[in-house]
Amino acid sequence: METFSDGVFAIAATLLVLEISIKTPGQLTHWQPYLAYVTSFVTIGIIWINHHHTVSLLGRVDRTMLFVNNLLLLTIAFLPFPTQLVAAYLGKPGERSAVVAYAATFTVMAAMHQVWWQYARRGRRLIAEHTPEAALRGVDLAYGPGVPMYAVTLAVAFFSPLASVVLTFAIAAFYLPSAALFER
Amino acid sequence: METFSDGVFAIAATLLVLEISIKTPGQLTHWQPYLAYVTSFVTIGIIWINHHHTVSLLGRVDRTMLFVNNLLLLTIAFLPFPTQLVAAYLGKPGERSAVVAYAATFTVMAAMHQVWWQYARRGRRLIAEHTPEAALRGVDLAYGPGVPMYAVTLAVAFFSPLASVVLTFAIAAFYLPSAALFER
Amino acid sequence: METFSDGVFAIAATLLVLEISIKTPGQLTHWQPYLAYVTSFVTIGIIWINHHHTVSLLGRVDRTMLFVNNLLLLTIAFLPFPTQLVAAYLGKPGERSAVVAYAATFTVMAAMHQVWWQYARRGRRLIAEHTPEAALRGVDLAYGPGVPMYAVTLAVAFFSPLASVVLTFAIAAFYLPSAALFER
Amino acid sequence: METFSDGVFAIAATLLVLEISIKTPGQLTHWQPYLAYVTSFVTIGIIWINHHHTVSLLGRVDRTMLFVNNLLLLTIAFLPFPTQLVAAYLGKPGERSAVVAYAATFTVMAAMHQVWWQYARRGRRLIAEHTPEAALRGVDLAYGPGVPMYAVTLAVAFFSPLASVVLTFAIAAFYLPSAALFER
Repeated sequence: METFSDGVFAIAATLLVLEISIKTPGQLTHWQPYLAYVTSFVTIGIIWINHHHTVSLLGRVDRTMLFVNNLLLLTIAFLPFPTQLVAAYLGKPGERSAVVAYAATFTVMAAMHQVWWQYARRGRRLIAEHTPEAALRGVDLAYGPGVPMYAVTLAVAFFSPLASVVLTFAIAAFYLPSAALFER
Repeated sequence: METFSDGVFAIAATLLVLEISIKTPGQLTHWQPYLAYVTSFVTIGIIWINHHHTVSLLGRVDRTMLFVNNLLLLTIAFLPFPTQLVAAYLGKPGERSAVVAYAATFTVMAAMHQVWWQYARRGRRLIAEHTPEAALRGVDLAYGPGVPMYAVTLAVAFFSPLASVVLTFAIAAFYLPSAALFER
Repeated sequence: METFSDGVFAIAATLLVLEISIKTPGQLTHWQPYLAYVTSFVTIGIIWINHHHTVSLLGRVDRTMLFVNNLLLLTIAFLPFPTQLVAAYLGKPGERSAVVAYAATFTVMAAMHQVWWQYARRGRRLIAEHTPEAALRGVDLAYGPGVPMYAVTLAVAFFSPLASVVLTFAIAAFYLPSAALFER
Repeated sequence: METFSDGVFAIAATLLVLEISIKTPGQLTHWQPYLAYVTSFVTIGIIWINHHHTVSLLGRVDRTMLFVNNLLLLTIAFLPFPTQLVAAYLGKPGERSAVVAYAATFTVMAAMHQVWWQYARRGRRLIAEHTPEAALRGVDLAYGPGVPMYAVTLAVAFFSPLASVVLTFAIAAFYLPSAALFER
């Protein structure tokens, strides 16, 4: 499960650069593509750290888990697409739809990660015997606020697309790094 | 053989996002690209699980096997191309050719996977000594229906392109996950 | 050296699909893109097998070797570019330049692989102590014809671009697989 | 940390080929795209060697380090973008902005690598116990000139864009290989 997951995370992060919608030197001062690029890249990097840590707590995987993991990777690999829309349309007509798609992708991603974790954790279904309860509670605390926070960015996107992207960036810069290491 | 194979699977799955034929926010409600993306991504993910499991039963590889494996990876890596055609043309003129190409790619992929397996399995040519016969029969049962099922999607594509893609999605969602774990 | 090399081989092979110059279902019967795709993919797969085998004979690497390996990977990673030109222009005006670039890339690639090998092999500079002389002679025999063969495809490209591509495909299908395993 | 990093380095290097701005055989004699491609590819390859070596000196990582490493990878993964601008605009109107963006990216990359190293090295914060002081001083000497050298290419870019790119190529060809192995 790890090899394929690692590959998808690294490739999705690196593909983001292909979506930077600057094609001429005259557009180099457009800041929207950089904001979208940095936000998506940092988020993928940190989710990867979280994913890696959580996998290390597992003792085994089953059929449902492999399928759920596949769906989680599907949303990660999907991220370059709404990133490109935000890079191209933020500050222009159509920005609301673009940022709603962007925030919705992050919300689904957080929800899939939560499903992934809850499936493994319920009754310690897939947890390794030697993993202490404290480590599980640490992940609970770290993953718990994910869906609500990204749901807020989704709601904000309808009123202020720019504020929504900035909020998503702030989550990646301030919340996720501390969450990633909370349990260490 | 595993490193190169793992890389090709993960990269092909992640490249699929580049083929989503939505370039403006106004097209975000087009559902065809999402159907094509999810179908191809989930299929690649599950075939990768199958491939990984089957490789674990082998004890050695030979020249023919490496060549057959190369051809199997070639069809996997080819998948983003017909996926892009389906994403762009489903529901529009030209959809039949696009979906025929899509279903034909899956059929060839299943056939190559079957050739791959039969070559290794005949007289236990490349099977590890410690692999029990039951594990081989499990893979036989899991791989056996692959070519016929995808051949049906190919036949259906000539009459109803949409039904063919939905059937391919259903195979990925219901048949493949159980096949993957049949022998565990 | 292996991780980075493995990655570049797998990614270059998988990126080839992005260069298939078929954008509409009506062009699905154009055969040139498939010929270019299959030829490049199979060649990369087999060169990767050769590279992997040869690295296993080494005992250490030095500064020059890392630089030469970097240049070899550069030519491998470059291959999707002339492949795209061949896919788009074979059988059309400009085909000669496209195929000359394609054949020249393979020739440089074979030359770099030969430089790579000769640097490691001269006086057993980087060869592991336990590697028998017979294994080195096996690689000599396998790599020796590479540059002359691709030089022939380059010469042929000036007279018949199609014949040059078919010859490159034949080398990938018949010569390289036997060369890859010659020494096993 | 290594898996994700390795992936990003290899993918960024291989994606460079997608940015070669030659779309027809008639443009094959344009040399600017080749200069940009080779310069970026060789630089990424060598920075990867340096990164790999330096990671091997560490004994542990912490939250800040993972975040800094993420930012370093962000600049590496960003490189295909200014490379494409240089490939497309060198020798044409707009070349100055393109090359300034290119040189600025390398300067930021060198600065991030220096921050990365200084954070780990200060008071041997993350250094493994068995790593000798001499190895640390070797890295100091190797990394020290990085930022000043790329700052020079940035200054030169304002006066002569071509000279700046050639200088960046020279750093990759002559300075970086020796730096990479200085401490071995």
